[in-house]
Amino acid sequence: MTRVTNPHHIDQPMGIGAIEHLFDRLWGLSRSLTGNGVRQSFEILHEHIPYDIHEMASGEEVFDWTVPLEWNVRDAWLETPDGRRIARFTDNNLHLMGYSEPMDQTLPWSELTSHLYIDNNMPNAIPYRTSYYKRNWGFCLTKNEYDQLPREGDYRVFIDSSLEDGSLTYGDIVLDGISDREVFFSSYICHPSLANNELSGPLLQSLIYKYVSGLQNRHYTYRFLLAPETIGSIVYLDRYGEHLKSNMLAGFILTCTGLDTHFTYKRSRKINSYTDRLVERVLSSNHCAQNVGIEIRDFYPYGSDERQYCSPGFDLPVGSIMRGVPGEYPEYHSSADNKDLLSFPALLDVFEVYKEIIDEIESDRFYRSNNPYCEPRLGKSGLYPNTGGEVHSREIRALNWVINLSDGKHSVRDIVDLSKIPADTIEKSISILLEAGIICLGGM
Amino acid sequence: MTRVTNPHHIDQPMGIGAIEHLFDRLWGLSRSLTGNGVRQSFEILHEHIPYDIHEMASGEEVFDWTVPLEWNVRDAWLETPDGRRIARFTDNNLHLMGYSEPMDQTLPWSELTSHLYIDNNMPNAIPYRTSYYKRNWGFCLTKNEYDQLPREGDYRVFIDSSLEDGSLTYGDIVLDGISDREVFFSSYICHPSLANNELSGPLLQSLIYKYVSGLQNRHYTYRFLLAPETIGSIVYLDRYGEHLKSNMLAGFILTCTGLDTHFTYKRSRKINSYTDRLVERVLSSNHCAQNVGIEIRDFYPYGSDERQYCSPGFDLPVGSIMRGVPGEYPEYHSSADNKDLLSFPALLDVFEVYKEIIDEIESDRFYRSNNPYCEPRLGKSGLYPNTGGEVHSREIRALNWVINLSDGKHSVRDIVDLSKIPADTIEKSISILLEAGIICLGGM
Amino acid sequence: MTRVTNPHHIDQPMGIGAIEHLFDRLWGLSRSLTGNGVRQSFEILHEHIPYDIHEMASGEEVFDWTVPLEWNVRDAWLETPDGRRIARFTDNNLHLMGYSEPMDQTLPWSELTSHLYIDNNMPNAIPYRTSYYKRNWGFCLTKNEYDQLPREGDYRVFIDSSLEDGSLTYGDIVLDGISDREVFFSSYICHPSLANNELSGPLLQSLIYKYVSGLQNRHYTYRFLLAPETIGSIVYLDRYGEHLKSNMLAGFILTCTGLDTHFTYKRSRKINSYTDRLVERVLSSNHCAQNVGIEIRDFYPYGSDERQYCSPGFDLPVGSIMRGVPGEYPEYHSSADNKDLLSFPALLDVFEVYKEIIDEIESDRFYRSNNPYCEPRLGKSGLYPNTGGEVHSREIRALNWVINLSDGKHSVRDIVDLSKIPADTIEKSISILLEAGIICLGGM
Repeated sequence: MTRVTNPHHIDQPMGIGAIEHLFDRLWGLSRSLTGNGVRQSFEILHEHIPYDIHEMASGEEVFDWTVPLEWNVRDAWLETPDGRRIARFTDNNLHLMGYSEPMDQTLPWSELTSHLYIDNNMPNAIPYRTSYYKRNWGFCLTKNEYDQLPREGDYRVFIDSSLEDGSLTYGDIVLDGISDREVFFSSYICHPSLANNELSGPLLQSLIYKYVSGLQNRHYTYRFLLAPETIGSIVYLDRYGEHLKSNMLAGFILTCTGLDTHFTYKRSRKINSYTDRLVERVLSSNHCAQNVGIEIRDFYPYGSDERQYCSPGFDLPVGSIMRGVPGEYPEYHSSADNKDLLSFPALLDVFEVYKEIIDEIESDRFYRSNNPYCEPRLGKSGLYPNTGGEVHSREIRALNWVINLSDGKHSVRDIVDLSKIPADTIEKSISILLEAGIICLGGM
Repeated sequence: MTRVTNPHHIDQPMGIGAIEHLFDRLWGLSRSLTGNGVRQSFEILHEHIPYDIHEMASGEEVFDWTVPLEWNVRDAWLETPDGRRIARFTDNNLHLMGYSEPMDQTLPWSELTSHLYIDNNMPNAIPYRTSYYKRNWGFCLTKNEYDQLPREGDYRVFIDSSLEDGSLTYGDIVLDGISDREVFFSSYICHPSLANNELSGPLLQSLIYKYVSGLQNRHYTYRFLLAPETIGSIVYLDRYGEHLKSNMLAGFILTCTGLDTHFTYKRSRKINSYTDRLVERVLSSNHCAQNVGIEIRDFYPYGSDERQYCSPGFDLPVGSIMRGVPGEYPEYHSSADNKDLLSFPALLDVFEVYKEIIDEIESDRFYRSNNPYCEPRLGKSGLYPNTGGEVHSREIRALNWVINLSDGKHSVRDIVDLSKIPADTIEKSISILLEAGIICLGGM
Repeated sequence: MTRVTNPHHIDQPMGIGAIEHLFDRLWGLSRSLTGNGVRQSFEILHEHIPYDIHEMASGEEVFDWTVPLEWNVRDAWLETPDGRRIARFTDNNLHLMGYSEPMDQTLPWSELTSHLYIDNNMPNAIPYRTSYYKRNWGFCLTKNEYDQLPREGDYRVFIDSSLEDGSLTYGDIVLDGISDREVFFSSYICHPSLANNELSGPLLQSLIYKYVSGLQNRHYTYRFLLAPETIGSIVYLDRYGEHLKSNMLAGFILTCTGLDTHFTYKRSRKINSYTDRLVERVLSSNHCAQNVGIEIRDFYPYGSDERQYCSPGFDLPVGSIMRGVPGEYPEYHSSADNKDLLSFPALLDVFEVYKEIIDEIESDRFYRSNNPYCEPRLGKSGLYPNTGGEVHSREIRALNWVINLSDGKHSVRDIVDLSKIPADTIEKSISILLEAGIICLGGM
C-alpha cells in the first residue's frame, strides 16, 4: 500500500506560467470515459503527480454498472453536399459526440438532422454531447454554422472511431502520513476540450499534490484519485468503498474551480461533518473568499462524484468547493468553457484555500489519554512545577485541558474552542504530553 | 387477518340527514361497559361499518384488570311517598346509575338520599354516574326535581337489572392496504344517552371508515376499534399491543368531536411523533380549523383511551383531535350533552380534517434504495437521457433526490421539504423508480 | 458498609460561635499531605463528624500516582548572620515549605537565596509553598522581611523534620439512606494555616454532616470524604471509583466557600447533569445568592478535586459552589488567607444553600411503574372514586401523571414541571402509589 513517490522534479511549486503550460498540453487531447486520450493525459500529468495507473477491463461489473467499451477516434467529419468538410474532429474534438460509433455513409439532410446537436442559447458555441451507454453517433455544431447548412442534398458522414473491448484508465496515489486517517481528493478526467468543467480539477489536484507531498512530517494520509466521472468513482468505490468508510476523515471533489466568481461550498450529505466545519471555518477567514463572496449550500444529489460518495450506503464526508457550479454558468458543457473563460488566478485562489484546509487538518488531531482515570502525575515527567502553591500558568492549564479532553471525541480544535486558550499553547501542550507518553493519537 | 368487507350499501357517503338519522337510532339505546345496548348499537352501526364483533367473557384477566360482569336493564324507577313514579329509566336511561344492581325495596328518604345524584352546577340536567367496579345502585336526577321531593315518607326503589357473568362486546375491522404499516382509529361505545361524549366518536368513525374503504389502491392498512372506554382498549392492547407497537404508523382517538367550538389537538406522549407532525401540518392549512382556532396541547395522562395507548410500556403515537374537550364543557357527562348541543356541521368539519390527514398519509411513504451503494444506473431502465451533456431537468433531479433519500428514514414529505421540488414531481419519480425496481417500500 | 454513627453530641447544630471555636482549634495545626497535623485535625473534627479514619501506606501505587512519604516537623527556623531567629515554624507554619527535608547547616546568603520564597504582589504576606514530589527545602517570608535581610554573612538553616515511610490519612463516612443512590461531599485537609482555601471546606462539611445526620427517614445515601487534596481523592477513586460511577446521583466539592463575595458555581464536566440542574435551580431561588450575585461557569480542568472526579474515565456529576475561587483572590495561598479574611456569615449562607440542595434531593426521586402496560386499575386499591362520571379532581390527575411518567427516566421534579401540578400534590400521589405497590423506586 505504501506508494509514496517523491521524485525531485515534482517538488517545485507551479506558477501561473507552468499551470498555463500544463493546461495547453492537456487541452487538445481527446479524452472520454476511456481511451488513449485519457492515457496521454496521464502521461503528461505524471510529470506532476506520479499516479499509479490502473486499467479495468470493459465488461467488469461494478455495483449496478458495467465498465463500458473503450472508445478511440482517429478522425471524423461531415461533408456537405457542396463538398465542404465541416464539424472536423481535428478542428475541435467537441464536434464529435462522445462514444460515436464508426461510420462512413452518405445520408440526406432529413436523415442526418436527428444526429446533429446545437445549443440554441449559445449560438456561437459547440455543445458537448455523449452517448456512453447507447450505441449512437452524432455531430455537434454551433447554431450559426448549423443554420447555414444546405437543407437538401446528400451529406457524407465519416467517423473513423473504434468502440470495442478495452479498458477504463484511472490513476490514484496515496501519500502516507503518521495516521491512517485519510484526506481524499477526487477529480475526473473524461471530457475533451473543456476548461472549467474538466481541466480545472486535475490542475488543482496537481497543485494540491505538490503541496501535500512537500509537507514535512505529514500527519494524515492523503489519497488522490483521478478517474472518469461517475463510472470512475463507482469503480473506485467498488474497490475502496469500505476502506474509505472506515478511514476517511475528510473528502473533497475537485470540479469547476476556475471561474472568476464567488466561492460555492456544497456540504456533504451528513449534517455538520468534520469536512463541513473545516471548510466553513477556513472560507470564513479567507481573505479572497470574503472578497468575492461565499455561498454555502446543503447537499443535493446531483453534480459530480459526490453523488457516488454520498450515496446512502456510503454517506462519506465529502464536500465540494467550487467557483462556477456545473450547470449554472452559460458556457458549461460547450466549447465556450475554454481557456478564455478560465481564470488561472481564480484557480490559484482556490488552491490557497485548500492549502489552508490542509494546514488546518494537519494541525488538528484527536487524542486519547493513557490515564483516563484521575489525572496523570505530570511531575513524574517534569511537566509540573516541583514547587507547589503558586497559581498555575496558562501552560499548565493547557496541559490540564488537553488531558481532560483527550477522550477520542474532542479534536484539538474543540479543545481550543472550549478552553479559549490560544491554539499554539494547546499545540505545545499536546506535543509535550505526546512525548511524555501521557496521551496518544486516537479516535476520529 | 384479512377481513376486508365492502358491501355495496356502505360505500355511499353520508350527508347530514343520514348522520342525524343514525344518531337518532343510536341515541336511546342503553349502553354501558357491557350488555345488550352495546350489541344493539353494533347491529345498527354494522350497516355502516361491518365490524367483526368479539365477545370477551366476564372474569378474563387483562393486564391489571378483569373483564366485568355483564349488566342489562329492563326497567327502573323510584316511587315517591305520594305514589308518583320518577327517575324512570324508560324516560331517560341516564336516570339509573350505570351498573346498578337489581333491587325492589321500600326505603325512607334518609336511606335513599345517599343513592341520589344531582349536579348542582347544572340544575336542569341529569348527571351521568356509574359504579362499574363496586356493587352499588343509584338514581340520577335534575337538581330541580330533587329539590321538590318530599323529605319524609317511604320511597319504593325498583331496579329490574341483571349483573351476572356474560361478556364484553367490542368490534374491530381492518382495511388492508399494500403496506402493513397501520393507521389506527379508536373510539368508544359505553355511554347511554350522551351525544358529544359518546356518539360523536362512532359517527365520525363511520364517516372515516366509509372514506377509507372507498380509497382506491389503499396504501396503508387501517384499523378501526370500537369498544367500551378504558376496559375496551385494555382488552384490545392485551390482544394486539405488541402488534400495534411494531406496526402503528399513526393513531387517533375519536372522542368529543362535535361541538361548535375551536379545534384542540392533544399530542401523543412521544415528542414530535409522525402523527403529531401530520396533524399539526394539516390543521395549520385547514381553512375551517384556521377560522375557528386551533389549540395544540402536549400529552397529559387523563382523558380517553390515549391513557392506555400512551402508557409508558406502549407509548404509541396516538393523538386526539377534539372539539369540546372531555371535562371542559359544562354539559359534559350530563343529559345536556345531547343532540341540541351537538353540531353535525362541526362534526363534518372534523371529518374533513381527517380526510386530509388520510390523504396526506396515503400520499406519504418511506422507501429504501435497492442500490444504496453508489447510484443505480438509471439508463438501464430508460430513466436517464441516452445523450449526455445537457443540464438535467427537474424530473431527473427528482429521481436523484428520491434515490439518495430512500434510506428508510426520510419520508416522501421529507424529500419534498429537503429538495424543494413540488410534491407531484417527487411522487412521479417515486412511482417510476418503484416500477423500475430501483427502490422499494421500507422503513417506518 | 453500614456505618451510620449518630452520637448524641454531634446532633446539635453549630452557631457562629461554635464554628469559630472549631476554626481556632484547627488553625495552628501543621497539616500537609500526610503527618500528625492531619491526624490531630481529624481528632478535633471527630467531635463533629465521626469519620472512619483510614491510613494508606507510603509507596502504595494508585493509578499514575504513589502515596508519598510521611512528613512531620518539630521545629524550623533561619538564623541570620547577626543571630536573629526568623521564619520560625512555631510562629507560623507557612514559613516552612511543605515537605522540607531535615537540615542543620550554615550557608552563605548566596546559597540560601534560591530556597527563599516571597510573593511580590503581597509584600506583607508569607506565601504558601510545597515540594511534595521532589526532595527540597525552603522558607517562605514576607517580601518586607526578606528585603531587610543582610545580603552577607552566614545563615544557619535549621529544619527538624522527618520525611520517611509512614502513611496518608483520610476520613470518610457514609450515612445510609433508603436508596443506595449517593450524594457525595468531598473536601480536603492538607494545608497548614490557610482559612478560605482549607478550613472553610471541613467546617462546611461538619455543618452539612450534622444536617444530613439529623434528617428523619433519609432517602438517599450520603458519603463524606475528607482527604489531602489531589492524592487523597486519587486514593479514594482507586478504592471507590467504580462504586461512585454506578451510584452517584450528585457530587460536590467543598472548597473556598467562605469569602464575603458572590457565589460561583462550577458545573460538572457532563452537560446538564442532575447536579447542575439542581444547584442552578436552588441558587436561582436563594435569596442570599440572588443578593450577592451568582456566576455559573462551565467545567474547566483545574481547581480542586473535581480534576480527579471529572477525569474522562470517571466523568462523575461533581460540581462546586464557591465564594472566592482558588487562584482568583489575591490572598489565595498566602498567610493573608486567614481568619480576618474569612466571613463566617458568608460560610453559613453557603450552608443554607446546601440545606436547600439536600432538601431538594431528598424530596426528589425516580420511580418505575409496576404496570407499565396500560394503566393500573386504581379502584382495586381504593384510589379511584367508586362512582364514575364526575370530572376528576387534581388528586386523581396527579396519580395519572405519576403513573404515566414513572418510567425510570423522569424524576419527580420532571413530573411537577410537566404536569404543572403543585409539588405537594405530586408528592402525595407518589406515597399513595408507593404504598399501593403500583410504583416502585427505580432509575437514576
